[in-house]
Amino acid sequence: MIPAILDLASLKALYAGGLSPLDLVEEVIARRKASDDPAIFITQTPDDDLRAAANALVANAPQPNSLPLWGIPFAVKDNIDVAGLPTTAACPAFAYSPDRDATVVARLKAAGALVIGKTNLDQFATGLNGTRSPYGAPRSVFNKDYVSGGSSSGSAVTVASGLASFSLGTDTAGSGRVPAAFNNLVGIKPTPGLVPNVGVVPACRSVDVVTVFAATVGDGVAIRKIMDGLDTADPYSRKAVPAALPASSLRIGVLDGAEREFFGNAAVEALYDAAIERAKSLGATIVPFDYAPFRQAAELLYNGPWVAERLAAVKDFIATNADDFDPTVRKIIEGAGAYDAVDAFEGQYKLGHLRQKALAEWEKLDILMLPTSPTTYTVDAMLADPIVKNSHFGRYTNFANLFGYAAIAVPGGFGTDGLPSGVTLFGPSFSDDALAPFADAMHRAAASGMGKDKAVSLPEASKVAEPDDGLVTIMVVGAHLTGMPLNHELTGPGGKLVKTCRTAGEYRLYVLPNTTPPKPGLIREPGFEGKGLEVEVWKVTPQAFGRFVQNIPAPLGIGKVMLDDGSQVSGFLCEPYAVKGAQEVTELGGWRAYIASRKG
Amino acid sequence: MIPAILDLASLKALYAGGLSPLDLVEEVIARRKASDDPAIFITQTPDDDLRAAANALVANAPQPNSLPLWGIPFAVKDNIDVAGLPTTAACPAFAYSPDRDATVVARLKAAGALVIGKTNLDQFATGLNGTRSPYGAPRSVFNKDYVSGGSSSGSAVTVASGLASFSLGTDTAGSGRVPAAFNNLVGIKPTPGLVPNVGVVPACRSVDVVTVFAATVGDGVAIRKIMDGLDTADPYSRKAVPAALPASSLRIGVLDGAEREFFGNAAVEALYDAAIERAKSLGATIVPFDYAPFRQAAELLYNGPWVAERLAAVKDFIATNADDFDPTVRKIIEGAGAYDAVDAFEGQYKLGHLRQKALAEWEKLDILMLPTSPTTYTVDAMLADPIVKNSHFGRYTNFANLFGYAAIAVPGGFGTDGLPSGVTLFGPSFSDDALAPFADAMHRAAASGMGKDKAVSLPEASKVAEPDDGLVTIMVVGAHLTGMPLNHELTGPGGKLVKTCRTAGEYRLYVLPNTTPPKPGLIREPGFEGKGLEVEVWKVTPQAFGRFVQNIPAPLGIGKVMLDDGSQVSGFLCEPYAVKGAQEVTELGGWRAYIASRKG
Repeated sequence: MIPAILDLASLKALYAGGLSPLDLVEEVIARRKASDDPAIFITQTPDDDLRAAANALVANAPQPNSLPLWGIPFAVKDNIDVAGLPTTAACPAFAYSPDRDATVVARLKAAGALVIGKTNLDQFATGLNGTRSPYGAPRSVFNKDYVSGGSSSGSAVTVASGLASFSLGTDTAGSGRVPAAFNNLVGIKPTPGLVPNVGVVPACRSVDVVTVFAATVGDGVAIRKIMDGLDTADPYSRKAVPAALPASSLRIGVLDGAEREFFGNAAVEALYDAAIERAKSLGATIVPFDYAPFRQAAELLYNGPWVAERLAAVKDFIATNADDFDPTVRKIIEGAGAYDAVDAFEGQYKLGHLRQKALAEWEKLDILMLPTSPTTYTVDAMLADPIVKNSHFGRYTNFANLFGYAAIAVPGGFGTDGLPSGVTLFGPSFSDDALAPFADAMHRAAASGMGKDKAVSLPEASKVAEPDDGLVTIMVVGAHLTGMPLNHELTGPGGKLVKTCRTAGEYRLYVLPNTTPPKPGLIREPGFEGKGLEVEVWKVTPQAFGRFVQNIPAPLGIGKVMLDDGSQVSGFLCEPYAVKGAQEVTELGGWRAYIASRKG
Repeated sequence: MIPAILDLASLKALYAGGLSPLDLVEEVIARRKASDDPAIFITQTPDDDLRAAANALVANAPQPNSLPLWGIPFAVKDNIDVAGLPTTAACPAFAYSPDRDATVVARLKAAGALVIGKTNLDQFATGLNGTRSPYGAPRSVFNKDYVSGGSSSGSAVTVASGLASFSLGTDTAGSGRVPAAFNNLVGIKPTPGLVPNVGVVPACRSVDVVTVFAATVGDGVAIRKIMDGLDTADPYSRKAVPAALPASSLRIGVLDGAEREFFGNAAVEALYDAAIERAKSLGATIVPFDYAPFRQAAELLYNGPWVAERLAAVKDFIATNADDFDPTVRKIIEGAGAYDAVDAFEGQYKLGHLRQKALAEWEKLDILMLPTSPTTYTVDAMLADPIVKNSHFGRYTNFANLFGYAAIAVPGGFGTDGLPSGVTLFGPSFSDDALAPFADAMHRAAASGMGKDKAVSLPEASKVAEPDDGLVTIMVVGAHLTGMPLNHELTGPGGKLVKTCRTAGEYRLYVLPNTTPPKPGLIREPGFEGKGLEVEVWKVTPQAFGRFVQNIPAPLGIGKVMLDDGSQVSGFLCEPYAVKGAQEVTELGGWRAYIASRKG
């Protein structure tokens, strides 16, 4: 009855149908117990505490789905505070017991969600592979030989294996995206600053982002919206002004030949090419772009002064406890000692130059679509060469937070090796919501299921609606028609032709005397049975529409006109005094025919 | 004939009246020669080169004022490249000969302006006082015992003493504002990133800004607009989206009691209080705010890791030429060695926390108005205690670029000591243009002349127009009138009532049957001689207007309505079929009277 993957839409439907959160919690407890991966959790919420939380929820908000995340189980990466559970950052000696929830956790709990435990990670979120933890290495849910991806390793596996509906990760270099790709999940990586980091152990504080692993894009975005919003205790938290993307015909940047690098993994490369084909079939325009400045920025994150932020985060602790670190993590963090303040600022200058080059590429693009990770490795292979192989995973991720982008990682199907891969869609700062419809469409088109359940269909209820383009429609009948003298008043401010059609039959058309350029007057006469008049329907921004209306001279105006399909749209009307004695051309069927008749 | 102060409006009028740039250049050459301050220039454009430039201008663009800065003489701070003149940054051993103009200089030359020379500065733009230069200390044009302010010392004095129409400075801590205050000038400090820094010797590259010293705000803004615009060779150059400010009733933040510090200078404090009174008389609302987070940010600039940027700018040179530095400047720059990369990032975190606190203060403010400098000192006093006394000048300036604000320094009159003072208006990022009308009004209200000419009136021609509020007018006749059921459709999106008036006499008013709430129909009938109908005229944004029109149901629409003063405004019209057989209420004089008659 309870599905393998606990996506929000399915759970909400079950709750609406009478399932109790208490029953769901028992199922989660049973699944946790039965899990064959011992490295997922660092701390589990004790069974009875989880039952008590479900009981409290039902007592306080008895109505099913009366809160947005009513009875939704989630897991929290163990570098994010949950009051009552220790925070370890995967370093036992570092552990502390927070008395407050991280801001994002508090917001999710207030929305009715239930914490099932704290998940394993690459220590101090330093890594993209999931093996750098004294609590063991979680594995890909599709092949236990393979890494889960990291650093949010346990968080991805909890969702992919059906232990939680969603989980929180963090993402500095790509930790909220790579594990999504390796476990057939969606990874929502907000624009830096959109979601506050208060109560999160920093990795690189200037570029850390709390992320969501979810079964669908719709789930992930709904959850992220609950986490959004200014918290002034985080110096990087910002009030977001959402950025728009075109509602259709997105120009999608893809790797050009020179920048294609899959480290020999033909399966992932084939899946990337398949994703490009899917994007085309969804109406996108594919635009190869130069990835070089993005790659160069990506390289700065580990091979530049930003590692000093990792040291800043733990400097007191490492001074006394260096031996308590994972050796690879320690090596990386201690590398920060090589950088002085001049290096730090020069790194910013270098990044700024690369940003300018990247912006030049954006001129021709709306979003980027890159492989989330170009390859994957077994745990054994990773442990044998931990720094170089880890860096491969970050090839197409590390630049995102340095440049302040929004990103959504979506599943991209399975390779001949049986392992999943994925693509990540990147948009400009605060395009988080605008990215979602296309990301969801890509996920649905991949038809690769959710998490470990490769065959399941994505619920219709979680489908992300196309964004309201915010445009208003206007019907034009005369000098504003395509090719006519005033058409530029529509095309100038970016108006788009929607369709050519006819008015309802009740309209008459007159030639207004003494107008330059010549203009018609359209008059409705209920009861008149004409054939309708040819008109065009356009879309413009409300602002352009406002200016357009403001500039219309008497005797014309804008009212509502009925089309032959019975719909009403804003369109040109005429004051009645102006058509007295004017030539009627209704019989010609439209202004275009009248103009042609004059020339002919 | 040529006025003491070479403001743009006066020069343009002279050019329009027949003055030749060749004559102007001779006057400038004569004034340079007669100057009693030997420390203004580091390099003067040779007389014959200046004559040649004027000749070339007249040959290429013979029509007077045919370029925006046709024949306008300007001076350039000697840390900004001018091809053909050495750049020294006030350090002779550092001098180089640029073969290209800085981007801003190239743009100004292309607009017709003529470079008269390179001006003295605090070495490497490190200082706010003007005494840190082997080329001598320029003096306040009002008292030769007193410092000119810096670091853009010579640039301010050239304009204030009538040698140039405007000059370029740079501003990291306040170098484009403090010398303006000490010389009765306007200092335009753009938002960081608005004006490119390509070809400028960096001080702190992440917060350096090229500035304009001008006689009036109008001059300065016009010049800045010529310098604006992306240059991707500068990593911090940005495309600006202008930020608006309210068109009236600005809420102006002023120092509260606890944060008032004038270092014992009662004259400057009295002038600050007088400026507050002037702002009130101009219609502003005065709001004391907590300056503490701004002050704490200001302190970071010299007492924090940002000094490493100064070292980054000259690190190769100082390694070999430490003895060629001004001792104070050397001491400051060498202090950067104390900071490592962790300090650099921790400085950013600290600044971020202060930014959050500052943003909380901005919730109640539109702009800030602070003393440009809280005091001034003699050259002797400054040299005796160069670091502490210099820091006093930065008390109310240093935060501006760290926080990314726009600022305009304006003259604020003269104290009992005969020395000028000024206030600086700060607005959010990219409010540069929006700040200008109020800044100009403050300057005009101070009535303290321009530069050394304390008595001259500011030219009317350079007055900064109130910003176009961008709003559109709409006339309403029925349910949208004040107090009527649909009035909220105007007030909701911020619409403002402009006036109550009457239509022209040719309109008839009908009660539309079956409308909820009840609505009238307005029909124009040329030749009908009524008394006009009572209507209201409102202003709304084009966007709100567009949405408003989109929501109007048939048979109503928006066209042009003639008012009783003969003007036409957008307003409600009605399709003719709808008033057939409807009750006419024209005689009642308006919808309000009709509604009253029904209730009565």
